[in-house]
Amino acid sequence: MTAAPTAVRIGLDVGGTKIDAVALDDAGAVVARRRSATRGGADGVVDSIRDAILRLDRGGAAVAAIGIGVPGQAHGGVVRHAVNLGVEELALADAVSTLFDVPVAVENDVKAAALGAHALGDGTGSLALLNLGTGVAAGIVADGALLCGRHGAAGEIGHVAVDPAGPSCRCGQTGCIETLAGGAAVSARWGRPGDTVREIFDAADAGDPSAIRLRGDVARGAAAAIRLLALAVDPDRLVVTGGVAGLGERLRSAIADELRRSSATSPFLRSLHLDTRVEMLPSASPAAALGAALLDARVLV
Amino acid sequence: MTAAPTAVRIGLDVGGTKIDAVALDDAGAVVARRRSATRGGADGVVDSIRDAILRLDRGGAAVAAIGIGVPGQAHGGVVRHAVNLGVEELALADAVSTLFDVPVAVENDVKAAALGAHALGDGTGSLALLNLGTGVAAGIVADGALLCGRHGAAGEIGHVAVDPAGPSCRCGQTGCIETLAGGAAVSARWGRPGDTVREIFDAADAGDPSAIRLRGDVARGAAAAIRLLALAVDPDRLVVTGGVAGLGERLRSAIADELRRSSATSPFLRSLHLDTRVEMLPSASPAAALGAALLDARVLV
Repeated sequence: MTAAPTAVRIGLDVGGTKIDAVALDDAGAVVARRRSATRGGADGVVDSIRDAILRLDRGGAAVAAIGIGVPGQAHGGVVRHAVNLGVEELALADAVSTLFDVPVAVENDVKAAALGAHALGDGTGSLALLNLGTGVAAGIVADGALLCGRHGAAGEIGHVAVDPAGPSCRCGQTGCIETLAGGAAVSARWGRPGDTVREIFDAADAGDPSAIRLRGDVARGAAAAIRLLALAVDPDRLVVTGGVAGLGERLRSAIADELRRSSATSPFLRSLHLDTRVEMLPSASPAAALGAALLDARVLV
Repeated sequence: MTAAPTAVRIGLDVGGTKIDAVALDDAGAVVARRRSATRGGADGVVDSIRDAILRLDRGGAAVAAIGIGVPGQAHGGVVRHAVNLGVEELALADAVSTLFDVPVAVENDVKAAALGAHALGDGTGSLALLNLGTGVAAGIVADGALLCGRHGAAGEIGHVAVDPAGPSCRCGQTGCIETLAGGAAVSARWGRPGDTVREIFDAADAGDPSAIRLRGDVARGAAAAIRLLALAVDPDRLVVTGGVAGLGERLRSAIADELRRSSATSPFLRSLHLDTRVEMLPSASPAAALGAALLDARVLV
């Protein structure tokens, strides 16, 4: 029989529509998990977070610390440009710390998910997590610590340009990885409002030539990101997540095929065995919330 | 008056023709430096290293530890595929440790140079060092520690492909950064045996259209590498070194011009101010030897 924890660390993954909240005991095990709705705007977000924490069944344990992952920039506890939350700027760590009187850490949700995916493995070594969502970004964990970078911008590989003849990017460059594999860019190129990458993959399966081309670009962009992460960081694990990654095996096999195709002429690339190393994070994984609860661990600047 | 150290750490940068050797005191200050010739082959390399250490004037101090940077792969103290040294495989750490009976660390010279360049700064935060030599690779220091990766391959960004219509690479891919900015690839494309990148830059200055195109490619490849490192790692410092970098200000200004050109349409890229942040490591810098002496510090796997 395990004794109930006397204090827990809370982690929240705050998305545009849902909050995923977990409580961790001292050993880092998830002892409670609850999903709830997100309300938009600065006040709405703070209220939603408060409610999510209060409604999490932590069995009477005190709250020792809170970590929050957000879809946007987070530096020094301040959230900026979180379009999906309707937040332009919000001192979120201060706001939540005032409510619960405990330390609060805030980080970009992709970085939090990388930390969580690492903890869900054996918790050793390194991991790069590629997020294929509305945009494209990565989270990097080296030697168990999150690589944040000087401006908190480490992992912004969606805006590495890989094709001078590629599509124009919203960032102003041409041929960024995000123009090939980012959900928003791919949907815009498809030109049917409301269709997501899933509908495009369905149309490709049905033989639509334009959809087949876009599906190839998604795989090409994701494969470029995987190669880049493998070469720059040489991590133990390469994990793919995000809304686009909800396609699961359909996406994994397309990326693996593209990795095989692109290494057909390169013994060097083949020696990295990337096609068999890519893991998809299950869409129900608590990685982002779990990683948020671990944000007070060591980071690499 | 500073007392002479009782023990020193030795660092060696072993190049194809020269060894740069330094001795560091406890505070990490260089108390001796000496350059000597490298002899090729496994036995020649070990003998050259022994002589370099014995001839370094360390004022009677004992040798506490030895670190060696080599132009090739180095993992677990074993050097592989060091073409410039005439070495296919050599258990270098064991060989030198037997001679001096102290711990010996061996690492790729680009990684050692990154650690040294970091120490030559204020020794805090992060740094990415781009080596433009025969090939192209980077060394990454995050939070003061060297990023090595699972297979010691972190930083191999020369083989990130950035142009599907680019030149074929010796690695079997197309449009790798190295095909644009690596000395061997650029010289091969120039087609005049014996000419280095310096002669190509000279010909470009004299108006040769082919040389102007190659000079543009060098800048384009180097700029792509700088953007990639800035986005993936977000380091405090971006430093360029290597044989090609011996061109100094001629190369720095070409890279800075290309970084400005490529960010002209991108407010996002302009916000990173990469064009003014690139530093050239002086060609006489002891960074690689100094970094080799620091190899026993913490690394990130």
